[in-house]
Amino acid sequence: MAARTFSRRNLRFLLHEVLDAASLCTHPYFAHHNRKSFDLTLDAAEKIARDLLGPGFEEMDRQAPTLESGKVRVHPSVARVMREFGEGGWIAASFAEAHDGLQLPLTVGNACRFIFAAANYSASVYPELTAGAAHLILSFGDPALIDTWVPPMIEGRWQGTMALTEPEAGSSLSDLSTTATPAGDGGYRIRGQKIFISCADHDGVENVVNLMLARIEGAPAGIKGISLFVVPQKRIGAEGALVSNDVTVASLYHKLGYRGAPITELSIGEQNDCHGYLVGEPHQGLRYMFQMMNEARLGVGLGATAIASAAYCAALDYARQRRQGRPVGQKDPGRPQVPIIDHADVRRMLLFQRAVVEGSLALILQCSRWADLAAVSDGEEKEKSALLLDLLTPVAKSYPSEMGILATSTAIQCFGGYGYCEDFPVEQHYRDIRIHPIHEGTTGIQGMDLLGRKVVMQNGKALALLAAEIRATIETARGLSALDGLAKRLEEALGTVERVTGHLATLAMEKGPETFLADATLYLELFSIVTIAWQWLRQATVARAALHHRAGRADADFYAGKILTARYFFAYEVPKTEALARRLTDNDPLTLEATGASFSD
Amino acid sequence: MAARTFSRRNLRFLLHEVLDAASLCTHPYFAHHNRKSFDLTLDAAEKIARDLLGPGFEEMDRQAPTLESGKVRVHPSVARVMREFGEGGWIAASFAEAHDGLQLPLTVGNACRFIFAAANYSASVYPELTAGAAHLILSFGDPALIDTWVPPMIEGRWQGTMALTEPEAGSSLSDLSTTATPAGDGGYRIRGQKIFISCADHDGVENVVNLMLARIEGAPAGIKGISLFVVPQKRIGAEGALVSNDVTVASLYHKLGYRGAPITELSIGEQNDCHGYLVGEPHQGLRYMFQMMNEARLGVGLGATAIASAAYCAALDYARQRRQGRPVGQKDPGRPQVPIIDHADVRRMLLFQRAVVEGSLALILQCSRWADLAAVSDGEEKEKSALLLDLLTPVAKSYPSEMGILATSTAIQCFGGYGYCEDFPVEQHYRDIRIHPIHEGTTGIQGMDLLGRKVVMQNGKALALLAAEIRATIETARGLSALDGLAKRLEEALGTVERVTGHLATLAMEKGPETFLADATLYLELFSIVTIAWQWLRQATVARAALHHRAGRADADFYAGKILTARYFFAYEVPKTEALARRLTDNDPLTLEATGASFSD
Repeated sequence: MAARTFSRRNLRFLLHEVLDAASLCTHPYFAHHNRKSFDLTLDAAEKIARDLLGPGFEEMDRQAPTLESGKVRVHPSVARVMREFGEGGWIAASFAEAHDGLQLPLTVGNACRFIFAAANYSASVYPELTAGAAHLILSFGDPALIDTWVPPMIEGRWQGTMALTEPEAGSSLSDLSTTATPAGDGGYRIRGQKIFISCADHDGVENVVNLMLARIEGAPAGIKGISLFVVPQKRIGAEGALVSNDVTVASLYHKLGYRGAPITELSIGEQNDCHGYLVGEPHQGLRYMFQMMNEARLGVGLGATAIASAAYCAALDYARQRRQGRPVGQKDPGRPQVPIIDHADVRRMLLFQRAVVEGSLALILQCSRWADLAAVSDGEEKEKSALLLDLLTPVAKSYPSEMGILATSTAIQCFGGYGYCEDFPVEQHYRDIRIHPIHEGTTGIQGMDLLGRKVVMQNGKALALLAAEIRATIETARGLSALDGLAKRLEEALGTVERVTGHLATLAMEKGPETFLADATLYLELFSIVTIAWQWLRQATVARAALHHRAGRADADFYAGKILTARYFFAYEVPKTEALARRLTDNDPLTLEATGASFSD
Repeated sequence: MAARTFSRRNLRFLLHEVLDAASLCTHPYFAHHNRKSFDLTLDAAEKIARDLLGPGFEEMDRQAPTLESGKVRVHPSVARVMREFGEGGWIAASFAEAHDGLQLPLTVGNACRFIFAAANYSASVYPELTAGAAHLILSFGDPALIDTWVPPMIEGRWQGTMALTEPEAGSSLSDLSTTATPAGDGGYRIRGQKIFISCADHDGVENVVNLMLARIEGAPAGIKGISLFVVPQKRIGAEGALVSNDVTVASLYHKLGYRGAPITELSIGEQNDCHGYLVGEPHQGLRYMFQMMNEARLGVGLGATAIASAAYCAALDYARQRRQGRPVGQKDPGRPQVPIIDHADVRRMLLFQRAVVEGSLALILQCSRWADLAAVSDGEEKEKSALLLDLLTPVAKSYPSEMGILATSTAIQCFGGYGYCEDFPVEQHYRDIRIHPIHEGTTGIQGMDLLGRKVVMQNGKALALLAAEIRATIETARGLSALDGLAKRLEEALGTVERVTGHLATLAMEKGPETFLADATLYLELFSIVTIAWQWLRQATVARAALHHRAGRADADFYAGKILTARYFFAYEVPKTEALARRLTDNDPLTLEATGASFSD
């Protein structure tokens, strides 16, 4: 695909003009970077996306992985992707220099990942998973573990994975039953079954390093008895050679989309010869894993945003070229047909896609910036950044995933019948993105996480911090022409979130947690719309300032388009908050009253 | 698939208890039918769905049609489907006895089509298209045309199609350029290109009869110069044998879903030897075609409803069986996991699907009943039925299509990762249903049709009739426990539609048609929600009466479930009307202000 899959102007607008990414470089850890080096990094990412990832987009989907004699065969470009990502330093980009990393801020690293995923989501997953797994070992493993497993991963020779899910333990991780038996030599023997494990075997690498949750024999039941292990596909034998570690692929899933990457079912230790290496302390596995999980959740939101971006770019290009129909009220068939972008309803559909894509990307890069500050700053700023990141991770995971599905569907609609056909990329985008509300915690799980844990943690401190951030943006926008109305509506909508939260907190005390959380998914949606509205008001504020101070002609269109898209979001999306609030406060516990019999016929 | 794909209890509830289908039999045209014969017909349809259609559901998708040496090869079961539908009288079921039909009310005929499409949507299209095309010839063709073309179609030996779309004339039918040249012998020679024509060639039949729009040489430009022709794939030669009619398949589309049926691109008259036979009068083609188009639009809504029904049944069965997690607040890992239907959020997802499926089906059967009454009754009832059918056809086409996509997506979500895999049918349902907001007029077109034509026709008479119908239901429900609150909210929501309609009418006068219609798609959504809310209140009213008078234990659960689903619809869906109304009355013409430059970067 030579076609554009994202807007570089927008990416730089968000990084430099909205988030001032270069300001991160005042922290010693990032001091050797600057705005120019960030731009060079983005250019390099774009080149890789264009030359290495993009060309395989369609073919990796059409030639999906196969399982042959127990070995997963993937598209030949995967081996090249892993090698070039390793050689180019992309896998270790955000790691410390001490670990061969570049100490690149995640803000910029995630901007690069966005570029990669927009070109070819499936291909981008292989190195991204490897980076997450390596980071997990670096964070909690002892030096020997790090020295053994991490270098080949960041070189792109070995694949990393996260191996949590089991047949009886999907959303319910406390039911994990994979066991780790002490082997007497300080190591463990692992036995169990894992399902839905991405990239856990393929012929594009020499080895696979699974970061796996298992239960040490005799451990407490539930989540308090889960430990984290390195469970490689091949372990290092006596002579230093790789030997089989009794991890076999039981089956390969055939999927709706995301077909360029294999998802596997693993049988572990069927021969009682699977060695596992404990990471950190026993029984701390879930806590450790949540480092990778939280990174992955941000990554899921980012991947969904990237797919929706590619679909939006395709729809926009098509809408500019495809001629069909005439303006309402000018039906003279003697006049030429107009490009469909001239129809108000098509522009509405394009604005919807843009609002979702650029609103989501703004939030994810904002979250990435908080992740950077949580890592390198101190005191209040560190705590605040960590709390905001924690609070908004479920939003950054689920909003792009859920709304990205609607955005890619709208991209198909812009194409009409052509969008339903394989000649254009949008049908693949539509298939690819459907995984995102499922993997790394379904939307339902994210809703429970937001309302049941994040909003209430530390007595609502994170929510108070977010409200203060949002009100600061409102203050900046208030009184400015074109933005004053938006500022007022955001204040209203934020008030709605606070009112609903208070209502639900009362409900929790009066009726208990089940009633409190029954509509957590709707609360998540309400909360997300307000969060994205905030991101749009911020962008509009920056765009308005730029328009008044320094924009040339081309840039003027860009900035005016930003303000228009913000208006779109407030006119079409923000009103949904009232409908959600109405349900969330109507005190009709109908989903709790319902039973299996309610569905009988 | 042996699995259930629809609720027979619900279908009978709608037909007999809500719509009193047997009352149609008081009309002489339907007098030889009765409730019992209707039930026998439904049973027969169910048997065909189970034995003939269902088994091919997955295989027809996996073994999609191919184009070999100019001939489209389809799954072998297609030939059997066409033959058995012909022999069983299904294709002609609603036709007059004089034309070998059964004079079956469309109300019951569409219930059967629902059963067929729920088992295997692609397979159901072949006979349904044939029936629509045959009906068009019967309605407007002369006796010779009827005698020649219709009998083999209703016997299932020849396939019927509707051939409208061209490369430059998709949504814009006025730009049709296929030409018909008088041949001197009373016939015409056709020349042109058609795209996206379903089933226009396949090896399951001996011949294909395309009902094709073309422009007679010298005809006026635009829609006033379009005529309707029978353009067969093979015409009847001198000796009565079938000879090639110069209609060739230029290509076959490879599609996201709906793969069991071929969609073709046709080259017509490349050798100047394509004979076309005029149907009815010249230049009346679009008016004639709209008979088939309106039937097809109802059929699209029905197909979408059927697919969503199959997905819902699969999700419901899975949710009853799959155990995962424990109730909120009871996290003891020592206790067994519960079926996921025990989680409030899963029940919410199931109620959403049920509300969409059964609300849509209720509306479509109601529309079918109006179609029957428009055909067989007289005077005021005839006019009223025709107006209501006309008004609600865009709703019946688009609501099930748009919401069915969300319902099938929610079905996937109920399955979690398994829903994304080919082992379960829901990923195919999700692909199959995505065509429905596109074919036979996109949702954008339906919105323009509803607001720009149907609502304003005869000074708003149809809307006034609908409002009266809705208020009659409200009156019945008012004051009844459990329903009084719903009745009040429907009254409010109907008031919202009326207020918004008035606002837009004023806008039309003050600002012109472009402003009036800019958000017609949102108006359609608002209108649809209120229409479906009405259908749910009707169902709840009937269910409540049944509960109070005569329900046994099993039936009591069914009726209570109906009332619960109605509550769901009013609690979760109806509030969306306020958000839509807010946008529709906020007087910010932002999609009209936007230009191509607004999207520049």
